[in-house]
Amino acid sequence: MSKFTNTIALSTFIATLASPALAQEVPEHGVFILNSLLFLMAGFLVMFMACGFCMLEAGLVRSKNTTMQLTKNISLFSLAAIGYYIIGYNLMYPLGNWAIEGVLSGYIIPFKDSALLEAVGITAENADDLSHAATGSDYFFQLMFCAATASIVSGAVAERIKLWPFLLFTLILTAIIYPLSASWTWAGGFLSEAGFSDFAGSTIVYSCGGWAALAGAIVLGPRIGRYVGGKTIPMPGANLPLTTLGTFILWLGWFGFNGGSQLAMGTIGDVTDISRIFSNTDAAAAGGVLASIIATQLHYGKVDLTMALNGALAGLVSITAEPLAPSIRAATLIGAIGGLIVVFTVPLLHKLKIDDVVGAIPVHLIAGIWGTLAVVLTNSDASLGTQIYGIIDIGAFSFTASSLVFYIISTVIGLRCSEEDEIIGLDAAELGMEAYPEFSKSP
Amino acid sequence: MSKFTNTIALSTFIATLASPALAQEVPEHGVFILNSLLFLMAGFLVMFMACGFCMLEAGLVRSKNTTMQLTKNISLFSLAAIGYYIIGYNLMYPLGNWAIEGVLSGYIIPFKDSALLEAVGITAENADDLSHAATGSDYFFQLMFCAATASIVSGAVAERIKLWPFLLFTLILTAIIYPLSASWTWAGGFLSEAGFSDFAGSTIVYSCGGWAALAGAIVLGPRIGRYVGGKTIPMPGANLPLTTLGTFILWLGWFGFNGGSQLAMGTIGDVTDISRIFSNTDAAAAGGVLASIIATQLHYGKVDLTMALNGALAGLVSITAEPLAPSIRAATLIGAIGGLIVVFTVPLLHKLKIDDVVGAIPVHLIAGIWGTLAVVLTNSDASLGTQIYGIIDIGAFSFTASSLVFYIISTVIGLRCSEEDEIIGLDAAELGMEAYPEFSKSP
Amino acid sequence: MSKFTNTIALSTFIATLASPALAQEVPEHGVFILNSLLFLMAGFLVMFMACGFCMLEAGLVRSKNTTMQLTKNISLFSLAAIGYYIIGYNLMYPLGNWAIEGVLSGYIIPFKDSALLEAVGITAENADDLSHAATGSDYFFQLMFCAATASIVSGAVAERIKLWPFLLFTLILTAIIYPLSASWTWAGGFLSEAGFSDFAGSTIVYSCGGWAALAGAIVLGPRIGRYVGGKTIPMPGANLPLTTLGTFILWLGWFGFNGGSQLAMGTIGDVTDISRIFSNTDAAAAGGVLASIIATQLHYGKVDLTMALNGALAGLVSITAEPLAPSIRAATLIGAIGGLIVVFTVPLLHKLKIDDVVGAIPVHLIAGIWGTLAVVLTNSDASLGTQIYGIIDIGAFSFTASSLVFYIISTVIGLRCSEEDEIIGLDAAELGMEAYPEFSKSP
Repeated sequence: MSKFTNTIALSTFIATLASPALAQEVPEHGVFILNSLLFLMAGFLVMFMACGFCMLEAGLVRSKNTTMQLTKNISLFSLAAIGYYIIGYNLMYPLGNWAIEGVLSGYIIPFKDSALLEAVGITAENADDLSHAATGSDYFFQLMFCAATASIVSGAVAERIKLWPFLLFTLILTAIIYPLSASWTWAGGFLSEAGFSDFAGSTIVYSCGGWAALAGAIVLGPRIGRYVGGKTIPMPGANLPLTTLGTFILWLGWFGFNGGSQLAMGTIGDVTDISRIFSNTDAAAAGGVLASIIATQLHYGKVDLTMALNGALAGLVSITAEPLAPSIRAATLIGAIGGLIVVFTVPLLHKLKIDDVVGAIPVHLIAGIWGTLAVVLTNSDASLGTQIYGIIDIGAFSFTASSLVFYIISTVIGLRCSEEDEIIGLDAAELGMEAYPEFSKSP
Repeated sequence: MSKFTNTIALSTFIATLASPALAQEVPEHGVFILNSLLFLMAGFLVMFMACGFCMLEAGLVRSKNTTMQLTKNISLFSLAAIGYYIIGYNLMYPLGNWAIEGVLSGYIIPFKDSALLEAVGITAENADDLSHAATGSDYFFQLMFCAATASIVSGAVAERIKLWPFLLFTLILTAIIYPLSASWTWAGGFLSEAGFSDFAGSTIVYSCGGWAALAGAIVLGPRIGRYVGGKTIPMPGANLPLTTLGTFILWLGWFGFNGGSQLAMGTIGDVTDISRIFSNTDAAAAGGVLASIIATQLHYGKVDLTMALNGALAGLVSITAEPLAPSIRAATLIGAIGGLIVVFTVPLLHKLKIDDVVGAIPVHLIAGIWGTLAVVLTNSDASLGTQIYGIIDIGAFSFTASSLVFYIISTVIGLRCSEEDEIIGLDAAELGMEAYPEFSKSP
Repeated sequence: MSKFTNTIALSTFIATLASPALAQEVPEHGVFILNSLLFLMAGFLVMFMACGFCMLEAGLVRSKNTTMQLTKNISLFSLAAIGYYIIGYNLMYPLGNWAIEGVLSGYIIPFKDSALLEAVGITAENADDLSHAATGSDYFFQLMFCAATASIVSGAVAERIKLWPFLLFTLILTAIIYPLSASWTWAGGFLSEAGFSDFAGSTIVYSCGGWAALAGAIVLGPRIGRYVGGKTIPMPGANLPLTTLGTFILWLGWFGFNGGSQLAMGTIGDVTDISRIFSNTDAAAAGGVLASIIATQLHYGKVDLTMALNGALAGLVSITAEPLAPSIRAATLIGAIGGLIVVFTVPLLHKLKIDDVVGAIPVHLIAGIWGTLAVVLTNSDASLGTQIYGIIDIGAFSFTASSLVFYIISTVIGLRCSEEDEIIGLDAAELGMEAYPEFSKSP
């Protein structure tokens, strides 16, 4: 070609390059890589929350039910992977490419489907969305959110629910209930159109799980001997270090949960926002712990470790709806109020004879509602009315659907173990395996 | 200089810049940084697997051997760092710069060697391989693989092997056996030339460790009282929450293990592949758990937690040879078959009176073989014959070498503790320290 | 415009672009993002160290004090977030924008302060320091260092210190003592001007915490029955798997601690340095373990697990002052000497009747001093005199200040629990909650 046939284009192009701001920006491929990396990193942190929930719950049940609690947790996390893959993900983000179709057709060609995942060794031109992230990374991250929702339920219904009916509920929760209600906000549904604001899911994940936990606790009824003559009989967990470990793991995982919900890390603005989110998430958890220990000291005359741990979690749940806008101080206060909520709603549940073994309902449902309302304190785009509207919609749906499913399971195949099994403990009765065969005192 | 002396070069250069695809690519430095970051991030995840193996094993031994199991695990992980540094890494990747030379000469100048690591504050021009990653990051990642191989062995030979002979074996495994056999595939050796395909090491890491475990279990023989009159006497682990914790940690670490084996994260294609790998790794573990719980329910009439946990690991081992090519569905199925393998080969080992305390042989060796064969189901570049060829080569070498080393140690310095020590427990007999001094029932 | 009005600028500009080195560099935004990502990733790893310390300590106390140890750890980590936010961070890095001002004015507008954090959705032009990282990411990382300092103290003073006085000390340590002494080196203070070299804080974090631990142990005095007639009565920890877990978690977190202290990841040189640091950190920990197990085998005739675990930590502390300059071999040796220090100074403390429940003083204080001195072995910019000068300055200040605070608390509100409470155990006496209600033998 002649030397400068293209001079006008050239000068335009050079002008573009010469603009310092643009020349310094991260190239498009870099944005895609960094966004995907965020999903992967945040995703493995949220994955580890499954371990956190498992340890938390395993420490809060009695040793005669510990093996069962461990079994439920590893199984529910696995079932979530199936439920969300086959139906949930596509129900949540309608992409016109349902994995379940593949599963059905796959009845014939089991190893030949590739729904959801981009092709191996893909180039920029063929990436599903070059301006966003790898679909597989997004799927991985979203799956972990779905699994977290399911983890919440298992603690509340512990020590009396049978294994397989519980897993059946988990499958329906992860395949249908959570994805459907989450789609209303996070997949451009009617709540996002209405302006409902729930950054990382105080309501969408935690309250949803909390409502399901409440439904389960109500349908099941309290453990034998829990409420006697208007009194609540303590049934202390067998292993508090395990519960503390679980709490720290959840605290760690929450950086992924909230930070990853920024959904992008490829610009100055995004990584700075994630940094705010990390700082605020930590502050809120700290606020929750401190409020809990002060409140239990003042109210009961002594600090209560399980309240402190649940205070941390309540602080985390509270900041989840808006971890970005608050200052660190506001985040601390929002978390502290979450911690107070735990201290003062646990006795309330006892009055209602709702037996929530690990405190999942105060932590996830009630602090989740508080966090969703608190958005309006720091984010001027949110309105109190819309927040309440979202809380009610998701609450009504997830509570009704969960109650219905629990009730049907209870009626058709049975939900609760026999009285005898409950007294012996589910480990011996249902699994024939002790969690601590050498330690436990005989019952 | 005159204005346009260089016009031809210029127009070529501008043409290059003007090609949108190229202009958007991540710059070479960015690729190097992102690749190194992958190794560091995946490396710390794989490092944490050492903790996972330790907890898994500590929970599955009886309390009288728990301190010993903990001691072995922290020690083997430390020894791997020495063995792989001094000999292993250079045996695996011949770079002409052996750390052991440094060690020998370093007898004189102990603080002045810098084998393996690039200089402090290096520039792009002097980086060992600017198109790849920092050598230190690669070393860190590879070391963790070597340590994982060693971790596998300790569980199978638990409760009867003496500490120092075990550590001597570990040193030889990490300095020589693993690096040598790994080099055949991962450092351009004859198996890679033959087309053997083992993405992240179902055979190279897990079967290799599994063969060593089998060799150890055979040379040692079963624990006293394990097989009596054709019956297998249960010897339940003392702390199942610990085992569950270990399994979750391993599951977490496996994202680094398989994801990091992509070896690059600086392009659209690489990060998208890593995203596939994360999703498939999770799916396979989930498949392993679900297959195990269903199979134990059907086969034994109750779910077995240890089988479920080993099912997760078997699923993970199974997908390790090819975590990239499968769809999520295929990955789930591959993992599920791994889970079934565990359920049905554990009794087989008992029939052969091979006493594998934690189930390492079914999980790592047998599921590792399955995973390596399963590559041909989804990766059309792999051939069944070559896969079998690789499995046999690595198996024959690692089993023979391990057996020989175990046998020589056994003959020369002794491998197994005395009968009396075994009955008392290794903690009291060899270490004089109880793991749970306040809990355990007296023996 | 005319075609080439701007030719000179153009040719300069093109010459710049044509320089391969520059054209390939990571753009400025990318550097900012990668640096921030380093802080976030390293920060969450260091955050997890709080869990590591908690598990380590909870396993080393007796079961009658376990709930208290867990309570102290979750509370101190939370208090650090307050102390460092309100005063510490600005005391350490004077930015003219004190959060405490906000807190005071915030008495009136609690949700409206934004000290420390950059605005939501910030652009490059408004970032606090475009050449560095997001302020929030830096804050998050630095906060975790401050919290680590506080975690060190709780183990040494365990089993006899009352909860609230301990927390009061923590608040002063994290708000004032640590930030002030850290500012002397890390915020351009007189020690950095003097050339004191402490890369990630062997002295600044670990010795500082160790001095505070020593002050607390001295002011409190030993546990009842610990030293009787010149003999040290063993008081074995209740749960060694927990301690081992804590050690592995700390080992993991240390990659963030040392690696993140590179403070940048956006260039070839930085990421390569971080890779060196990861490799050296692992080598030093391994060296510490191996030296400990060999030394205890030779010295006591048997390997001591708690020494091995503390050996790992001592190795890590030792390499923290200079994890970058050493070769892997030198790092192994530096860590090994740290491991030996633990083995041989633990008995020394017993002779002095300083009762350090978890070995924090040998591990953090003495190995920290060793590590700070060892800098001169591999980093030619450091001088022995200056290292000693820094050790003395920080030691004198942190020991004096801590002693004073402990003494004042002891005199004014009381520090140590009653004799009766100590014998019963703090869990029953102060908290009314057992850590293992079903396992522990009655006292």
